[in-house]
Amino acid sequence: MTYCVALKVAAGMVFASDSRTNAGFDQVSTFRKMIVYERPGDRFMTLLSAGNLSISQSVREKLQSEQFMIDGEQQTIWSTKSMFDAARILGNTMRRVDELDGPVLRTAGIDASCTMIFGGQIGGEVMRLFLVYSTGNFIEATPETCYFQIGESKYGKPVLDRILVPSIPLADAAKCALVSIDSTLKSNLSVGLPIDLVVYETNSLASQEMVCIDENNPYFAMIRGTWGTRLREAFASMENPTFDDSPAQHPLHARSERYEVLRKITNPTEKIV
Amino acid sequence: MTYCVALKVAAGMVFASDSRTNAGFDQVSTFRKMIVYERPGDRFMTLLSAGNLSISQSVREKLQSEQFMIDGEQQTIWSTKSMFDAARILGNTMRRVDELDGPVLRTAGIDASCTMIFGGQIGGEVMRLFLVYSTGNFIEATPETCYFQIGESKYGKPVLDRILVPSIPLADAAKCALVSIDSTLKSNLSVGLPIDLVVYETNSLASQEMVCIDENNPYFAMIRGTWGTRLREAFASMENPTFDDSPAQHPLHARSERYEVLRKITNPTEKIV
Repeated sequence: MTYCVALKVAAGMVFASDSRTNAGFDQVSTFRKMIVYERPGDRFMTLLSAGNLSISQSVREKLQSEQFMIDGEQQTIWSTKSMFDAARILGNTMRRVDELDGPVLRTAGIDASCTMIFGGQIGGEVMRLFLVYSTGNFIEATPETCYFQIGESKYGKPVLDRILVPSIPLADAAKCALVSIDSTLKSNLSVGLPIDLVVYETNSLASQEMVCIDENNPYFAMIRGTWGTRLREAFASMENPTFDDSPAQHPLHARSERYEVLRKITNPTEKIV
Repeated sequence: MTYCVALKVAAGMVFASDSRTNAGFDQVSTFRKMIVYERPGDRFMTLLSAGNLSISQSVREKLQSEQFMIDGEQQTIWSTKSMFDAARILGNTMRRVDELDGPVLRTAGIDASCTMIFGGQIGGEVMRLFLVYSTGNFIEATPETCYFQIGESKYGKPVLDRILVPSIPLADAAKCALVSIDSTLKSNLSVGLPIDLVVYETNSLASQEMVCIDENNPYFAMIRGTWGTRLREAFASMENPTFDDSPAQHPLHARSERYEVLRKITNPTEKIV
């Protein structure tokens, strides 16, 4: 399995990916799922991949040279003037790899799909972030939905839903991505270290931070040790429910106007409805 | 979709279930997924169900009268002396319903599966909690894994993994179940109010609290309003990463001994591996 997350906020972008792949529990390997393309001053792009590893590796290889006709000219991800077109070139590359390998894999009952997150900035344009589906079509992040996840996304989603807004500082965005990964690591065995993390500041056209985080990374170790404790403190700080009609600031035992409390079934002959 | 969770701690048990069912986004209904069986002083049992609604309703109906041969005697959930045997009777009921409806549904390409959580206490025995699979076999909760979830379980799992230990007071366990449901509601549209909550105290052989929680419940409204705020405070209280080599208590920018930082790809002719 895999977990990758990318965030786009006003201050910049954060990309993070784990590096575990598995085909069954006893065939676990480390493959890194991030590629950073950077020509400083011209373009910065990051690609994250999830899904069938042979397919996504082929896509990554071919994307380097893939040409696609845009406005009457053959363009590559290195020549195009727009991230939208770069995402189109990526989608087309995925379709071409699927033409090559998909039919045989599907005949064998193997999932040939892969999903990609692709984002960055090309000089003269704003930052853009795309989720590219297995079928090569894609959607773009907006201020309302300013992150994408691929792979084992559910455990790490609640913290993103709670914390992320476009106005948060880039350091908070990076912390949020790492907490999201920590939650996923905690609840799912098939996601694993090391984590690749890239931080990009708006309009810089070069990455500000690239780090490979293993179990000895002091900052991530702090997150792993602290977040659980802080969660437990937050949990403890909330009023407990009381189980009777004794006075409480926020009584649990309040009657719903709309719904009856469930009737208990008390003997074998009682109808349950 | 559905979300149900049941916890067994030393102090007692907590059962909670949402009440949304859907067959597509525009066919959404309210069906409650909990049944409480209680003969005070003799037995307390609660059943939570997820999956195909017609199948789970049939199982609930038939379970009232289902007989199963145990140690040479026909037993029902009302006569058996052991929760293990009651779970066996439930599993057998599920198999019988599947014999009736499963083949036709599967031929039509419809998922005929349902999953149940079944727990409680019968006089003379300890509390027990079971997860009963669609195929009628089941597993039991232990001190190491003292909760079960069915339905849309992933969003609500991180908080259970962080908070739950067998020693926590029953009020905390109930609060934990409600926070788990709140996280699920926040991240998934197909889980909805009202919530049925039952709290059971060890050896009481009758439920201490049964409540139907709708959007006006003061306690749950407090949880919904407070947990997000507390999470954001917990998040803010953790040190932010710094993106350079400046001194930090827990530097992010620390070199891994095992893994290299990803190499950037800087031009179209560069090999990516």
